[in-house]
Amino acid sequence: MSEKIRIALDCMGGDFGASVVLAGAELSLTQLSNVEFFAFGDLATLEPLIVKRPTLHRRTRIVHSEIAIRMDQKPAEALRLGRSKSSMALAIDAVKTENADFAISAGNTGALMALAKIKLRTMGNIARPALAGLWPSLKGETIVLDLGASIGTSAEHLFNLAVMGGAIGRTLLEIDKPTVGLLSSYFGQFDRQHYVYGADRLLQDAQRQDLHYIGLVEGSDIGSGHVDVVVTEAFAGNVALKSAEGTARFIGQSLQDVIRSSWSARVGYLLASSSFSMLRNKLRPPNGAMLLGLNGTVIKSHGSADAASFADAILFGCKMVRAGVLSSLQQAIRQPVSL
Amino acid sequence: MSEKIRIALDCMGGDFGASVVLAGAELSLTQLSNVEFFAFGDLATLEPLIVKRPTLHRRTRIVHSEIAIRMDQKPAEALRLGRSKSSMALAIDAVKTENADFAISAGNTGALMALAKIKLRTMGNIARPALAGLWPSLKGETIVLDLGASIGTSAEHLFNLAVMGGAIGRTLLEIDKPTVGLLSSYFGQFDRQHYVYGADRLLQDAQRQDLHYIGLVEGSDIGSGHVDVVVTEAFAGNVALKSAEGTARFIGQSLQDVIRSSWSARVGYLLASSSFSMLRNKLRPPNGAMLLGLNGTVIKSHGSADAASFADAILFGCKMVRAGVLSSLQQAIRQPVSL
Repeated sequence: MSEKIRIALDCMGGDFGASVVLAGAELSLTQLSNVEFFAFGDLATLEPLIVKRPTLHRRTRIVHSEIAIRMDQKPAEALRLGRSKSSMALAIDAVKTENADFAISAGNTGALMALAKIKLRTMGNIARPALAGLWPSLKGETIVLDLGASIGTSAEHLFNLAVMGGAIGRTLLEIDKPTVGLLSSYFGQFDRQHYVYGADRLLQDAQRQDLHYIGLVEGSDIGSGHVDVVVTEAFAGNVALKSAEGTARFIGQSLQDVIRSSWSARVGYLLASSSFSMLRNKLRPPNGAMLLGLNGTVIKSHGSADAASFADAILFGCKMVRAGVLSSLQQAIRQPVSL
Repeated sequence: MSEKIRIALDCMGGDFGASVVLAGAELSLTQLSNVEFFAFGDLATLEPLIVKRPTLHRRTRIVHSEIAIRMDQKPAEALRLGRSKSSMALAIDAVKTENADFAISAGNTGALMALAKIKLRTMGNIARPALAGLWPSLKGETIVLDLGASIGTSAEHLFNLAVMGGAIGRTLLEIDKPTVGLLSSYFGQFDRQHYVYGADRLLQDAQRQDLHYIGLVEGSDIGSGHVDVVVTEAFAGNVALKSAEGTARFIGQSLQDVIRSSWSARVGYLLASSSFSMLRNKLRPPNGAMLLGLNGTVIKSHGSADAASFADAILFGCKMVRAGVLSSLQQAIRQPVSL
């Protein structure tokens, strides 16, 4: 039996708060056996919600916290008001004190980033954390980072992201030398001052043995599975993520519309319904991104996640911990670089 | 009957060259009545291809050009070698001399941009051209710019893109005061130096009467139809476009896979086949983007376009000309701005 995973839940975050977080935690137990939860949040809110879920109740300890960071609070304000007593801060503290293996929150991303950075500190020469997630592709899964943690970048920052992405690829996808590409757009227009150009040179020159740098890739390569790890600055990464989500929603809605458009289509849909539910599962937007470059594992769930989706993010966190992604990152970052 | 549109075809561009360009031109004639083509390219290549297409032949004049700009040529090299004699340059010249209403090319984007800028010059205070395209959405079509023309930006450049996007919205979508949004990602992390922040302030302060600025939007808003015009810097715009295309391809392939996965699914698909072909049409990636901010209309087709898709780009160009987008842009740019 694998070792027990201890999970620090920020129960007060996300668009729907404690009810969805706890329903998601309960749902994750259908696929996880050896886990334990610390539920951080308002005791009076959490207790009745947990008591009515006996399976969850047996594996959960509530830790009262008076403060909930709001979704619209600016990071600076969140830090000022919630640094020591908010449910988010306490969940991160549990990782710092090694009472939990990872913290997870569907709350305010900026606040989570800021709190995690202050409390866990960044590794080695990493200046700012990044968000890494898994993207479904025709050949399995693609690791994409940064999905929106640190707006603005430099060639060196992108280089570090590539190294970290490679480390995740090795442990999570179990590929010795994962292929890594730099997200780019039309090339002819780049000048030598552009950070993508600089990062490309750094990666070519470094010739690292722990990853296979394949050069510049485009947004369409993320879904093709043509490359294991796609590295980009946070603004572009977030734009890519949201555009892909929007496109999937648009196609899903269009598909529903055509199915409803005629009787023969409805009957056809019924005949193919088990295949379509396979498809729906395959296309379900992945949830869960890891805050990268910190001395501890923090998982970000979509704010708008429902219980099933929040459960996905918990499973994602467990996968990261079981694979040993954190120590693989620490090792990759420590490795001397021949720049 | 609407006025005749004269189209300058760069026949030597794109991944497949003259055969696809001319097949596309012929195909466009099934939907266009009053048009005339100037086919720029190598006479020996073009003549036999045109002669065997009598419908096209009747409406086309070949203009011989000795030089074809290659897809992988750097803009500077393309300018040096192809400025006066390439098929691309001659097609743009035809717009400049008002012998053609628009030029269209599936060729090298960087070279097209550079040639068009030098020959047609930018309007008013527009420093660099942009690429604008139409994106299918749940509510019709969304105008997105810049899709990849000018990497790098400033608050003022984004402001100008918003004004031009508004002008296209008014003429093409026929909306008096189209809604305009600035593409952004997670907000908490922006500092006041960021160009999106600056452009947001400029647009709020300007309070233009010819557009309705709704603020920051996300990548997922492009497909939702929640906003008429989405404005972004070229790198992010190109990433958004390619990610959406990649996602659509991934979903299309997954859909095919599930349909083939069982007999009942195949039968179901046959029953629903007419609905599915409607869907395929709806989801066909749009082709054709307009080079914006120039004194003349230049249309860029995807390099990898097939004949049907190149025909789409021709139709897109005709739509732009018929709607009078160019003069609407000139008017919007001239309008005094209360910055």
